[in-house]
Amino acid sequence: MQLSLAFIVEALGGTLRGNPALEIQGLAPLESAQSQHISFLSNPRYQAQLRATGAGCVIVAPALQDMAPTGVALIVADNPYLYFARLTQLWRQQQTRSRVPGIHPSAVVDPSAQVDATAFVGPLCVVEQGARIGPGTVLKSRVTVGEDCVIGARCILHAGVVIGADGFGFAPDGERWEKIEQLGAVRIGDDVEIGANTCIDRGALQDTVIEDGVKLDNLIQIGHNVRVGRNTAMAGCVGVAGSATIGEHCTIGGGAVVLGHLKIADGVNISAATVVTKSIAKPGHYTGVFPLDDNASWERNAATLKQLHTLRDRIKTLEKENKP
Amino acid sequence: MQLSLAFIVEALGGTLRGNPALEIQGLAPLESAQSQHISFLSNPRYQAQLRATGAGCVIVAPALQDMAPTGVALIVADNPYLYFARLTQLWRQQQTRSRVPGIHPSAVVDPSAQVDATAFVGPLCVVEQGARIGPGTVLKSRVTVGEDCVIGARCILHAGVVIGADGFGFAPDGERWEKIEQLGAVRIGDDVEIGANTCIDRGALQDTVIEDGVKLDNLIQIGHNVRVGRNTAMAGCVGVAGSATIGEHCTIGGGAVVLGHLKIADGVNISAATVVTKSIAKPGHYTGVFPLDDNASWERNAATLKQLHTLRDRIKTLEKENKP
Amino acid sequence: MQLSLAFIVEALGGTLRGNPALEIQGLAPLESAQSQHISFLSNPRYQAQLRATGAGCVIVAPALQDMAPTGVALIVADNPYLYFARLTQLWRQQQTRSRVPGIHPSAVVDPSAQVDATAFVGPLCVVEQGARIGPGTVLKSRVTVGEDCVIGARCILHAGVVIGADGFGFAPDGERWEKIEQLGAVRIGDDVEIGANTCIDRGALQDTVIEDGVKLDNLIQIGHNVRVGRNTAMAGCVGVAGSATIGEHCTIGGGAVVLGHLKIADGVNISAATVVTKSIAKPGHYTGVFPLDDNASWERNAATLKQLHTLRDRIKTLEKENKP
Repeated sequence: MQLSLAFIVEALGGTLRGNPALEIQGLAPLESAQSQHISFLSNPRYQAQLRATGAGCVIVAPALQDMAPTGVALIVADNPYLYFARLTQLWRQQQTRSRVPGIHPSAVVDPSAQVDATAFVGPLCVVEQGARIGPGTVLKSRVTVGEDCVIGARCILHAGVVIGADGFGFAPDGERWEKIEQLGAVRIGDDVEIGANTCIDRGALQDTVIEDGVKLDNLIQIGHNVRVGRNTAMAGCVGVAGSATIGEHCTIGGGAVVLGHLKIADGVNISAATVVTKSIAKPGHYTGVFPLDDNASWERNAATLKQLHTLRDRIKTLEKENKP
Repeated sequence: MQLSLAFIVEALGGTLRGNPALEIQGLAPLESAQSQHISFLSNPRYQAQLRATGAGCVIVAPALQDMAPTGVALIVADNPYLYFARLTQLWRQQQTRSRVPGIHPSAVVDPSAQVDATAFVGPLCVVEQGARIGPGTVLKSRVTVGEDCVIGARCILHAGVVIGADGFGFAPDGERWEKIEQLGAVRIGDDVEIGANTCIDRGALQDTVIEDGVKLDNLIQIGHNVRVGRNTAMAGCVGVAGSATIGEHCTIGGGAVVLGHLKIADGVNISAATVVTKSIAKPGHYTGVFPLDDNASWERNAATLKQLHTLRDRIKTLEKENKP
Repeated sequence: MQLSLAFIVEALGGTLRGNPALEIQGLAPLESAQSQHISFLSNPRYQAQLRATGAGCVIVAPALQDMAPTGVALIVADNPYLYFARLTQLWRQQQTRSRVPGIHPSAVVDPSAQVDATAFVGPLCVVEQGARIGPGTVLKSRVTVGEDCVIGARCILHAGVVIGADGFGFAPDGERWEKIEQLGAVRIGDDVEIGANTCIDRGALQDTVIEDGVKLDNLIQIGHNVRVGRNTAMAGCVGVAGSATIGEHCTIGGGAVVLGHLKIADGVNISAATVVTKSIAKPGHYTGVFPLDDNASWERNAATLKQLHTLRDRIKTLEKENKP
């Protein structure tokens, strides 16, 4: 497959400086691109890579267009990274393999489920009673959408996703646990992407809600009654416990854990592997990770950490002694 | 769907104070319930919510029955939360959608597997050679039960569960790894619930064992040769490494990790995201989580943490100097 | 099933001290083995178990052969643990249940995919367009291998594995996220084993690469563009973020997290639940885990930890005051 620079600029805009007839055969990172490749530079810190690149064409911001070596074609665009994202989409669309909408014959779709005619339900998916799948939405393969759950428009659910398993709810009955049937469902907005083997549980009484534009990576657990605000993104292996409310435009790093019933404000960034143990009312960047060390140093410091409160008291005592 | 208060009390007991003919159309939390809803109050701390509720009926403990506003029907029960759990079950049962036992035609069940006639094997499940599924047990959808694994009675296995994948066992052979075939299986007791995409590995020589009444949430990993004691509950994303033994009536918070070959006593509660690095012989509540902070404060404290052992030595030195 | 000691030694080598006609009915750990069992001792620390064992036969190193009680047959081998691993394989092979190569009729394999005639594609697997499965490789059940992904020879992919879901890539476009189509694939070498429900994402522009001999446990997330070096092993629930490069012969403990774009050298061992926040250039053992404590002690120490930087300053002040 190849696309000419003229075709690309015609489709995506931007100002071309170079030969419009040049045929591009692939996208590649700046440092490994060759003359048949197109690349991009979004971060001015990598200008040196631009000067040394072997790419046939580079997408650059206006301010950087004069840094490119002569002989390299340029597409000048205000936001090169966004332009690059759209170019990956253009590339994918031009590949001959287009996905025909419809329900794969191996999928098991309950007759009472409503699947939009423009949606795609892939091989070996399960869509249960009363579920609804919106227009343009793609269930890749082996996805389960449980009873009465609703998926909006233009969503992508990757392989192994489970929407609408029972939330984890039990009432203690002496030593044993009595199941609380989960009578709510899951409501997912438009333009949501959900990574492979991620699970979103149905609510206990009301619905678990994922708002428009949310992006969830693989192997994430979203407990019952959670609400995830618009355009929030979570990296892989995050766990969000039941009844947590997460604001809009948040980012949550991989492996982070959000405890139950907490509220996280809009615009909060949580570092990877951080445990959120209390509500966060203000936007900002929050972290809680034990620093990596060589094992021997870690052992010494970790052992001392268990006496930290005592150390504080000893410092207090020293301070008192030093006061005349 | 609606149920009268008379029907509910007839089915579940409790003392009704109010109109037995009142029809209930749904269950709702105290703070959002309306006149067609039934709610419950289990925690006396939320008495104010009871006074302000718009619910048509509230399940309350005897001690709180006089706190309710007039005009609200009450079901007085010794344990309102347990009563509520049973009500969710009654509600679910009354919904017209009843699950007919049997094996979904899309499931792949080996002829040598034994599935009880009252069990349900859902769409696209795999039940391998020699596996046994007990009475009343439900495999929701896309569940794999591996060779020779045994699931007891009245269990629920949610979508994507994998029972009996190989435990992670390899003997080093110079630079490469030689596979240790996992010759044991998995034995799961009665009344066990297992969340979506959770994995329980088969034992190396003997069986991995999950005792009666255990409740596991989603995306949990249980390694080979592990034993989980009766009525223990684990929240999502927990990892239990091989050959660990976990007692009865324990709770393990979401994202916690239990290292291999450890023993945890009965009645131990592990906080979410805690790493259990040594055996625990006494019941109690155990924690090990780096506290959340704004990122700038965390950076300062984390950097200092790597010198903690040195700080201790400096305190010692100061103490010696201060001794006359 | 039973195998004679003569048969075992004929197949696997080693020196037999005992009755070659003795029939072995199973493999068992040293402490629970009975006279019909074979066991092994690889760690000299467990010599006492050898002296007390009820096993019919024990595999031992030459140096330990005189510690065994009389009446116990011995197979003397240089590396008893490796010998034991091979014995588990012999045992498995002798079980009547042999896996016939081929594609299970319930699997969905695209006509353009290439599945070697000696490979096994189990029930309800999905193999997408252009994917290739090498000789002797086994896809257990409910495995997805995405478009154009390549799996080498003699690999084992356990139930629920997802190879080649889209990497997590989005360009910010104001408040919303624009998808970066993932145009790379996944390349997996020979002799790789991948645990249940583990996910390996396809690369953004180039391929995600898993080299020969890598062993991955269950519920692991490997992000896009990652490279995992030869014979590296990762325990359950590990998360490796995008574009990380992990060396050869590394071990990564369960629940550990490796951040994106990092480089880890060959021969690095990461402790369980450790967060790798920076590149590691030297082989060695690295750890970063908050130590477990009873909850009350943890609360005190965790609170003090947030003042750690201040405590350091107070120590500095004390030191200055103490200088004459």
